[in-house]
Amino acid sequence: MYRVLPLLTDGEVAECRRVAASTQFVDGRTSNPHSKTKNNQQLHDPAASQASAQILLQAFARSPEFREFAFPDKIAPPVLAKYLPGMHYGAHADAAFLNLGNVVIRSDLSCTIFLNDPRDYEGGALIVRLGDAPLSFKLRPGEAIIYPSDTFHEVEKVTKGERLVGITFIQSKIADPFRRNLMFDLNEVAALEGLKMEPENFARLQLVQANLLRYWADKP
Amino acid sequence: MYRVLPLLTDGEVAECRRVAASTQFVDGRTSNPHSKTKNNQQLHDPAASQASAQILLQAFARSPEFREFAFPDKIAPPVLAKYLPGMHYGAHADAAFLNLGNVVIRSDLSCTIFLNDPRDYEGGALIVRLGDAPLSFKLRPGEAIIYPSDTFHEVEKVTKGERLVGITFIQSKIADPFRRNLMFDLNEVAALEGLKMEPENFARLQLVQANLLRYWADKP
Amino acid sequence: MYRVLPLLTDGEVAECRRVAASTQFVDGRTSNPHSKTKNNQQLHDPAASQASAQILLQAFARSPEFREFAFPDKIAPPVLAKYLPGMHYGAHADAAFLNLGNVVIRSDLSCTIFLNDPRDYEGGALIVRLGDAPLSFKLRPGEAIIYPSDTFHEVEKVTKGERLVGITFIQSKIADPFRRNLMFDLNEVAALEGLKMEPENFARLQLVQANLLRYWADKP
Amino acid sequence: MYRVLPLLTDGEVAECRRVAASTQFVDGRTSNPHSKTKNNQQLHDPAASQASAQILLQAFARSPEFREFAFPDKIAPPVLAKYLPGMHYGAHADAAFLNLGNVVIRSDLSCTIFLNDPRDYEGGALIVRLGDAPLSFKLRPGEAIIYPSDTFHEVEKVTKGERLVGITFIQSKIADPFRRNLMFDLNEVAALEGLKMEPENFARLQLVQANLLRYWADKP
Amino acid sequence: MYRVLPLLTDGEVAECRRVAASTQFVDGRTSNPHSKTKNNQQLHDPAASQASAQILLQAFARSPEFREFAFPDKIAPPVLAKYLPGMHYGAHADAAFLNLGNVVIRSDLSCTIFLNDPRDYEGGALIVRLGDAPLSFKLRPGEAIIYPSDTFHEVEKVTKGERLVGITFIQSKIADPFRRNLMFDLNEVAALEGLKMEPENFARLQLVQANLLRYWADKP
Amino acid sequence: MYRVLPLLTDGEVAECRRVAASTQFVDGRTSNPHSKTKNNQQLHDPAASQASAQILLQAFARSPEFREFAFPDKIAPPVLAKYLPGMHYGAHADAAFLNLGNVVIRSDLSCTIFLNDPRDYEGGALIVRLGDAPLSFKLRPGEAIIYPSDTFHEVEKVTKGERLVGITFIQSKIADPFRRNLMFDLNEVAALEGLKMEPENFARLQLVQANLLRYWADKP
Repeated sequence: MYRVLPLLTDGEVAECRRVAASTQFVDGRTSNPHSKTKNNQQLHDPAASQASAQILLQAFARSPEFREFAFPDKIAPPVLAKYLPGMHYGAHADAAFLNLGNVVIRSDLSCTIFLNDPRDYEGGALIVRLGDAPLSFKLRPGEAIIYPSDTFHEVEKVTKGERLVGITFIQSKIADPFRRNLMFDLNEVAALEGLKMEPENFARLQLVQANLLRYWADKP
Repeated sequence: MYRVLPLLTDGEVAECRRVAASTQFVDGRTSNPHSKTKNNQQLHDPAASQASAQILLQAFARSPEFREFAFPDKIAPPVLAKYLPGMHYGAHADAAFLNLGNVVIRSDLSCTIFLNDPRDYEGGALIVRLGDAPLSFKLRPGEAIIYPSDTFHEVEKVTKGERLVGITFIQSKIADPFRRNLMFDLNEVAALEGLKMEPENFARLQLVQANLLRYWADKP
Repeated sequence: MYRVLPLLTDGEVAECRRVAASTQFVDGRTSNPHSKTKNNQQLHDPAASQASAQILLQAFARSPEFREFAFPDKIAPPVLAKYLPGMHYGAHADAAFLNLGNVVIRSDLSCTIFLNDPRDYEGGALIVRLGDAPLSFKLRPGEAIIYPSDTFHEVEKVTKGERLVGITFIQSKIADPFRRNLMFDLNEVAALEGLKMEPENFARLQLVQANLLRYWADKP
Repeated sequence: MYRVLPLLTDGEVAECRRVAASTQFVDGRTSNPHSKTKNNQQLHDPAASQASAQILLQAFARSPEFREFAFPDKIAPPVLAKYLPGMHYGAHADAAFLNLGNVVIRSDLSCTIFLNDPRDYEGGALIVRLGDAPLSFKLRPGEAIIYPSDTFHEVEKVTKGERLVGITFIQSKIADPFRRNLMFDLNEVAALEGLKMEPENFARLQLVQANLLRYWADKP
Repeated sequence: MYRVLPLLTDGEVAECRRVAASTQFVDGRTSNPHSKTKNNQQLHDPAASQASAQILLQAFARSPEFREFAFPDKIAPPVLAKYLPGMHYGAHADAAFLNLGNVVIRSDLSCTIFLNDPRDYEGGALIVRLGDAPLSFKLRPGEAIIYPSDTFHEVEKVTKGERLVGITFIQSKIADPFRRNLMFDLNEVAALEGLKMEPENFARLQLVQANLLRYWADKP
Repeated sequence: MYRVLPLLTDGEVAECRRVAASTQFVDGRTSNPHSKTKNNQQLHDPAASQASAQILLQAFARSPEFREFAFPDKIAPPVLAKYLPGMHYGAHADAAFLNLGNVVIRSDLSCTIFLNDPRDYEGGALIVRLGDAPLSFKLRPGEAIIYPSDTFHEVEKVTKGERLVGITFIQSKIADPFRRNLMFDLNEVAALEGLKMEPENFARLQLVQANLLRYWADKP
């Protein structure tokens, strides 16, 4: 499933852009040295990276929509990436595991946070290829798209202007996407309709919710 | 889970008893020759067996409660069994598969249909042992108890009078008991509360129901 | 995954339309009496139904692309459906099982075969809702879209003209969509690259293919 | 499965009751603020809570019966709860996960430790509802009942006197109850019969035990 | 696991050899037209094929060792194969499914029945490659080796004489080899030690056997 | 699967033997007090144990073949073991879990590192029993055999000389041996053939690799 979240305030977007403008970007292959498809730039300076990651992690932490949709267990510190004219990222699925030194993250969900106005650049859409059916995302500043890490996606070539985004990867408590989506749907129904039900029926629905979560979630 | 069903009409109970009275019973070990725990009698005459099985199968076929609880795929032809004073059936779990010649049945659920009055005999309760917690069933004529085939159960020694029951085994479309119970609970909530919901929420609940059934049921 | 197939020849499209024009359609709720979301018409006449189903089943049978993508085990006889102005089909997931009398089909994949020109009607697109991301399909005559049965989809209201489609449901040998998609991808790589490999490496890849199929496919 | 354990010595029971008598109890909804079914009191004072939890955890730690039955991985610090006349806890399944701040526990098994004499209060039995079959537990001081967290259970209204219990939740190394119970049964048979077997047969049984544990237990 | 069975009587071996001698063999690629590794000959004449298949199927049917080890559900009619000097069958895993026209067989286990004396030919051993560890089988006439279909195996080049074997494939009731092997081991222990046990312990072991079979076997 | 690794340099072998010669060995039942089949000696002195474990762990850490084959998550500190004439280790499967005090290891793979020349002792082969087919390993100094922990294996009685080995146990990121082996095979094919493929096909193969790893590996 695909979720568009209004994640950042205007102030946070501005702050991220200020951080990005204050330091140099390096070749994105630094973090994927063998990639033949990646052609972009990434923020590298430790202080700037930490500052922008902090802003984005706080925004995730306060979002109930994110929590309810993703069942997040761990979130990789988001990285700022820049696409200048001619740059793109060819079709790929994200790696299964990210080794962050002190912690390893299984990438169940990927997330792109858009940081500049879609009218500021041409091309540069995030395209997810579902066989013969492409999904295209080019969102407003501060909006994030959360999508499964396991399907082919790419960033179209930027032909004009500059595309600035944050990128991160999420390990979910419910690894299986099919189960995660059903759990989300059932929880939504319970949240919206539960209090109107006969108490006994609601208790029964809560038993189903608790037991599916018990059965489907990773060992804590 | 355990379900008590009012299965037979008084007329059907009477008919079953008439069939039982019309023919001889044989040692129950006929169908479990190596059993060291079985000590009862079973109806053996083909015509009488078919007549009583027919009555009981028709009763199952018309019961929505049975269908909704058991998700039945196949039902073994029920057999009449008799316990005279001194007879009992020691603790056992039912065999995984019953070979009925033309068809094999996986026994997911077992069922005892009581055919005479509990006051007509002493002892003879069906006891299910859940570790240190026993469940005891001694029901009214025409009532059936449906219980999991995979737990220890036994029939207490009859000390006086005669106990007459029908016995059968059910292969469910949902083999796993944990999943079958959750499916049942969710279906019950949807049946009782669905029409009161916002249509969009009900559609979402129906998607969860359909997908759990798709995922959990045996291949048709 | 989503697959667009050129399924029918022009002659077959014409024949299906001739069949559709030769007989009356009935309210689509005939086959889903409790549906609150379905508002369309279906072909009902047995001879016409059989004639059109025959044409479509033959087209599936001769398509290697269909076979390689869907791993079909059973296909329900396709039904012709018509949407006149004002008609639509609200968001729903397809039922898990279709009882066709002599056979039960688990609906893993759904398929819409478009039978008239998209310029002949306004509205009437097939919309699949993947959370916040909609996919929209309005194909040329003779083209088919195959999509997972387990996600929300709907047919937009037709506002002008008439939409004529064939509809069917497919039980796949590989029930799990995640596994089916990986099997398809791996088979494609093997078909396109296998003969260029060192024989030993190709044999090893074939071992992986055979063992994943052995492990993932339903019992034959 | 259900297990009744003689858990506490008389001295420990007395010590728990002394702790309970030394401090105030608060509304039990403190730890389940949204519960509509909970109506009891819980010990809240940190020092008293720690003292009673310590006594109970030590009792679990020294019990081989507990270890063999539950395959415990983590145990939540037990909490003392009190039911005064009119109080009860309506039917519910326990939540899947308990967030204890520094650790999260998946509640596979629940446990009630009885701390006063069943003759000291009326009502107040722990009832587990297995569909149409209720199990009722009202044990002697120092005895504990361990039961699955995933089934409906309730505490009957206390109508006279006071019911004092300890409550805790256990994460098992073997999450699936069906598998945990089979592992327990097989281990018991091996412990009671293994040394009488031909060494080769016992080695073979040990291979089965080791491999089922390897296969069924959570990642350590 | 690997099992060597004394399958055929001397008379049956002689009869198979007589059948083989009475008719022509054809290129083995007839049944695997795309194979690049197969270089042998197969019996093709329908009457001769049926006669030899009949002998071998009867031998399987009467063997309790085969039944207990393989939990057979379906057996493909065995085919006679001949290797003349220079012939071999390169490393391969067997296909997941065999389409026999009226029935499809999942090949869980493969079987080679040796029909002539190992001293009658040089080379021609069946080699199973378990990574760096080869197993080599060159058995006496009438002996069969049953081995998993999912591992690399090959037939060494015959350098002198003639190698005559029967070949078949078995679909097991328990598809997963790990589970099938544990079931076999547990059943063997129960058969050899059960009657010496305390009846209660034996009943408990039988409950474990029945429930593992219920849980692990394919839907009947 | 079975893998023979050239693990140690000659210098490391010499150093291990020097450590072994510098201190006393104790009865191997120290670490398996209830074993009836173990009859060997183990290094016990903490400093010597640490020194030899260090050498062996470093050798594992630098071996890409080991990493690619075993997907190691944790490795128990290897222990030196000695077999003098008359000693052996009877058939057993290794325990599922090793409690090393600060960490628990699930033993998926076992490993024997040979430390002296096979000509220095008679008997003493490591035998793995795969039903009726034995594998026998008696390797050169510095070579290691990695084998599944879940199958019967034994050390033949040493009849002359002395057998010195290192022993350890490995928890793999991919617990299931069937899946681990397929992942290994697929990774090997990708490593050897990937760069020759059409980039799009290689990207597709990489998607399959990433998704199988995501799906099959333990939670990180």
